[in-house]
Amino acid sequence: MIRNRMPRYEVLSEEAMATLDQGWRRLMSEIGVEFMDDRALDLFRKAGQKVEERTVFLDPDFVLEQVAKAPREFDLQARNPENTVHIGGDAMAFGAVYGPPFVREGEVRRDGTMEDFRNFSRLAQSFSVLDSAGGVVTEPNDTPLDSRHLDMVYALQTLTDKIYMGNVVSGTNAADTIAMTEILFGSREAIEETPAIISLINCNSPLRWDDRMLEAQFEYSAANQPVVLTPFILMGAMSPVTIPAALTQQLAEALSGIALAQLIRPGCPVIFGSFLSNIDMQSGSPSFGTPESAIGLLCTGQLARHYGLPFRTGGGLNSSQTADAQSAYEALMTLLPTFLAGTNFVMHAAGWLEGGLVSCYEKFIIDIELLRELRVEFTPLEITEESLAFGAHTEVGHGGHFLGAEHTMERFRDCFQRPWLSSTSNFERWLKQGGKDTAARAGEIWRKKLESFEAPPLDDAIRAELDDFVTRRRRELGD
Amino acid sequence: MIRNRMPRYEVLSEEAMATLDQGWRRLMSEIGVEFMDDRALDLFRKAGQKVEERTVFLDPDFVLEQVAKAPREFDLQARNPENTVHIGGDAMAFGAVYGPPFVREGEVRRDGTMEDFRNFSRLAQSFSVLDSAGGVVTEPNDTPLDSRHLDMVYALQTLTDKIYMGNVVSGTNAADTIAMTEILFGSREAIEETPAIISLINCNSPLRWDDRMLEAQFEYSAANQPVVLTPFILMGAMSPVTIPAALTQQLAEALSGIALAQLIRPGCPVIFGSFLSNIDMQSGSPSFGTPESAIGLLCTGQLARHYGLPFRTGGGLNSSQTADAQSAYEALMTLLPTFLAGTNFVMHAAGWLEGGLVSCYEKFIIDIELLRELRVEFTPLEITEESLAFGAHTEVGHGGHFLGAEHTMERFRDCFQRPWLSSTSNFERWLKQGGKDTAARAGEIWRKKLESFEAPPLDDAIRAELDDFVTRRRRELGD
Repeated sequence: MIRNRMPRYEVLSEEAMATLDQGWRRLMSEIGVEFMDDRALDLFRKAGQKVEERTVFLDPDFVLEQVAKAPREFDLQARNPENTVHIGGDAMAFGAVYGPPFVREGEVRRDGTMEDFRNFSRLAQSFSVLDSAGGVVTEPNDTPLDSRHLDMVYALQTLTDKIYMGNVVSGTNAADTIAMTEILFGSREAIEETPAIISLINCNSPLRWDDRMLEAQFEYSAANQPVVLTPFILMGAMSPVTIPAALTQQLAEALSGIALAQLIRPGCPVIFGSFLSNIDMQSGSPSFGTPESAIGLLCTGQLARHYGLPFRTGGGLNSSQTADAQSAYEALMTLLPTFLAGTNFVMHAAGWLEGGLVSCYEKFIIDIELLRELRVEFTPLEITEESLAFGAHTEVGHGGHFLGAEHTMERFRDCFQRPWLSSTSNFERWLKQGGKDTAARAGEIWRKKLESFEAPPLDDAIRAELDDFVTRRRRELGD
Repeated sequence: MIRNRMPRYEVLSEEAMATLDQGWRRLMSEIGVEFMDDRALDLFRKAGQKVEERTVFLDPDFVLEQVAKAPREFDLQARNPENTVHIGGDAMAFGAVYGPPFVREGEVRRDGTMEDFRNFSRLAQSFSVLDSAGGVVTEPNDTPLDSRHLDMVYALQTLTDKIYMGNVVSGTNAADTIAMTEILFGSREAIEETPAIISLINCNSPLRWDDRMLEAQFEYSAANQPVVLTPFILMGAMSPVTIPAALTQQLAEALSGIALAQLIRPGCPVIFGSFLSNIDMQSGSPSFGTPESAIGLLCTGQLARHYGLPFRTGGGLNSSQTADAQSAYEALMTLLPTFLAGTNFVMHAAGWLEGGLVSCYEKFIIDIELLRELRVEFTPLEITEESLAFGAHTEVGHGGHFLGAEHTMERFRDCFQRPWLSSTSNFERWLKQGGKDTAARAGEIWRKKLESFEAPPLDDAIRAELDDFVTRRRRELGD
C-alpha cells in the first residue's frame, strides 16, 4: 500500500458533475434497478422504496442517506500485520489479475491450473508493490468446480500473508471463505471488528444485480466484510456509447448496490467499483487501455470522492495477445491514470493479458516494473535550499561532469529508481547478454523468483484446522 | 498541431517555485554561465553584465527583462498553409526523432542512410499526428559530412510540406538552411515576418553554451527564426543527482540562452527547451522513460508557464534495444506526462529507440498509435443532458445489450477511437492472422505507407532554384 500525496488530476467541471448527478438520479428513479434476490427486494420494500416485480425504483435521496452510512475509510487486516492495508483517503492498494481461465508463459498459452494459481500467489507474495494476490489469480481448471474455492482460499491463506479476496460464485462459497478466514484470524469477532476479506460483486450491467453475486454480497456485508460493488461496463455493449452515459449508469448501479449493503448491515464497508472500457466497434471485441477508458477512470475518481466513497478502478489492462509493446502501452495507458486518479483499490495490477482471458507470467513481471516506477513518480518532490546542491556546481564548474562529484558519491545508491526489468545496456553489451527482449528477461525473473520462494510461516495449529475444514467441506461437496 | 484544452497537471507548490526561483538566480549570478563565442560575450558586456574570460555573471532581473521581450506565442509557417503551426498557449506540435546515427528495421540494426532519412521524412509527412519530420530524423551516414545538411534540408522541403527544423552544426549550415528557406517561401522578408525554421540549440550542460551551437543561434535569432534553447541534462552526469538541482540548472541555462537571443534580436521567438533524464547509476548509461524524468517534465511545464515562455520537452523516449514492451512503456511514461504538462513543442515524438541512438521504423508506428490515442484522451469530455442517453436505457432495459440500440447505431462509426496498430482480435482470429506481435504488425504498416507515398506538389521553379542552390553549395563545399 502506498500513500499517494500527489495532486489528483480532475477533469470534470462543477457543471458537468451536476449534470451527471441529475443523470443517475433520473435513471435510478425512473428506469430503476433490478435485484434478482428476494431478500434484497424485501429490504428495499421495507425501507419504503417502490418495488415492481424485481425492479426497485429508488429515491435518490434515500440512496444517498444509505451511502452516507458507509465508512469513508477503513482497514483491511492481513495475517501479517505489516501487510494490513488501509482502504480510502490517499491510500492505494494493489492486487494481481483476477479471473482469467488461461495462462501464458512465454510462447505457450494453455488452461490455467491449480499449480499456476499457487505460482501466481507466490509471485504476488514476493513483490512488495502488491498488497494482494487478489482472488482468482487464474482459474484452476484441473480442480473440481464445486470445491475449488476451498483450494484457492487455502492457497491465498497459506502461500501469502497478505490480504486476499473472497469467493463470490455463490452464497455457499462466500460462507466457506468467511469460515476459513475466521479460522485464520481466530474468530468471527476478530474479522467483524477489522475486516479481513474483500470481495468483488459485479453488476450485470445495465442496471441488474444477479442472484449469485447478491447471495455472496449478503454473506459478506452481514459479516462486515467489504464488497467492491462494480458496474461491469464495456461501453457500446453494457452501456450507451457515450462516456457521460456510462458514468451516469455506473453511478446508478454502484450507488444502488451500496445502498443494499447498508440495508443489510448499516455501516458495513463498501467500495465504489468501476470496470469501464469500451467495445472496438469494428470487431465487437472488448478493448482495453483505450483513451475512452482512461477518461472514464479519471472521472470515476472525481465522482467517488464527491460521494465520499473509497473507489476501485484501473489496473494493467490490455487487449494484447502476447507480452509485447501493445500489452505494455495499453497497461500503462490505464495504470498511469490509475495513479493520477488516486485509486484506492486496484485490481488486475499485475499479470493481465488478452482482455483478461489470460494470466501471463511475463506480463506479471512487466507490471511489477511499472508499479515500481509509478510509486516513485507519485512521491512528492522535496524542494529545499539544500536539494538545489549549489555546492556541487562550485565543485564541478562549467561543462564539467557530476559523476565523480562528492554530492553524487554520497547519493548514487538511491538517488534514482533502479531499473530492474528494463535494460539500459548499450547495444554491444545487450547482444553479449543474449540480446533478450523485455518478455524474455521477464521470463528469467519470474522463474528465479519462484525457485527461491519460501512460504511465510503459519502456526501449525491454524494450518491443521484449515486442512480439516477443507477436507470436511470437500467431502460434503462431493469432490 | 492540437489544442490541449484539458487541465495542466501541476505538482509544484508556490513555496517550491520560489525556492527554484532563488536557485537559478544564485547559480546565474554567482557561478555564471560560459558562452564560447566572442560576439555573445560582447553583447552581454555591452548590456552591462559582468564578464570574466568566457563566463558571464548575469543579473537575474536583467535576464527576466530580456525574457519578457520574447513572444509568449507565435506562428511557424509551413509551405502548405494547412500545416502551419502555432507554438505556445494550449497548442501542442509534434516532430519525429532527431539525431540518431543508427536505424533499426525489424531485426536489423545498421547505419542510417540518406534513403532512411527520406523514408522517415515520407512517414512523417504521411501521418497527421506529426507536424514535422523534425530535422535530423536519422544521420545520413552515406553522404559527405560537409554538405549533408543540404541534402537533409532539401529532403524535408520537398518530401514534406510541414514545418521543419534547421541545421545547427555550424553557422554556415544555419545560413544555408535559411537561404534554402528563403527560396522555398519566396524571400527573406516572408520568413522574417512569419518564421519558417525552428532549430535546436543545446546547452553543453552544466552552464556552458558551445561555439558551434552559438554560431547557429546567431544566424537563426538574427533572422527572427525560433530556437529551442535546451539544457541537455542527464542527472548525475550533466547536473547534480537531485531533481530540484536539475530544474534550477535548467532554468539558469535556458534563461541565459533566451537572454542572448533577445540581445541578438529583441523580440525574436524562442522556446524554453528541456531534455531532462537521468543516468542509470549502476551502469552509468543514460536512462529514459524514468519516473524522475516524468517528474522533471511536469515541473518544467509549470516553470515555463511561470516565466511566460512556450516550452519543449517530452517525446517517445526509451532506452530499449528493440520495439518491445520496454520501448513502449518507457515511451508512454514520457509521452503521457508530455500531454499532462501541455508541452508546446514535442521533439522525438516518433521513432526514438535505444536512448536516441536508433531511429526505428517499427517504433515510429507504435508512437503514431500512442499519439493518436493521447489526442483523444486529451480532448475535453462534453457532458450534456443529451449525452446521458436516457432514451437508450428506455430502449434496452435491465440486463440488455446496447450493440443494436438506435443510439449506438447512429454513433458507432466514430464514437470511439479506432485501434489501428493495436489488435483486439480474439486469440483464434489473431493466430489465423499470423500471430503477429505489435512490432511485426508495425513493420507491415510502415512498408505499406512508404509504398503508397506521394510527395506533396511543389512549384517547378522553386524546385529548380533549390536544386541550383544545392548543386552550387555542394561544389563550394568541395563535395
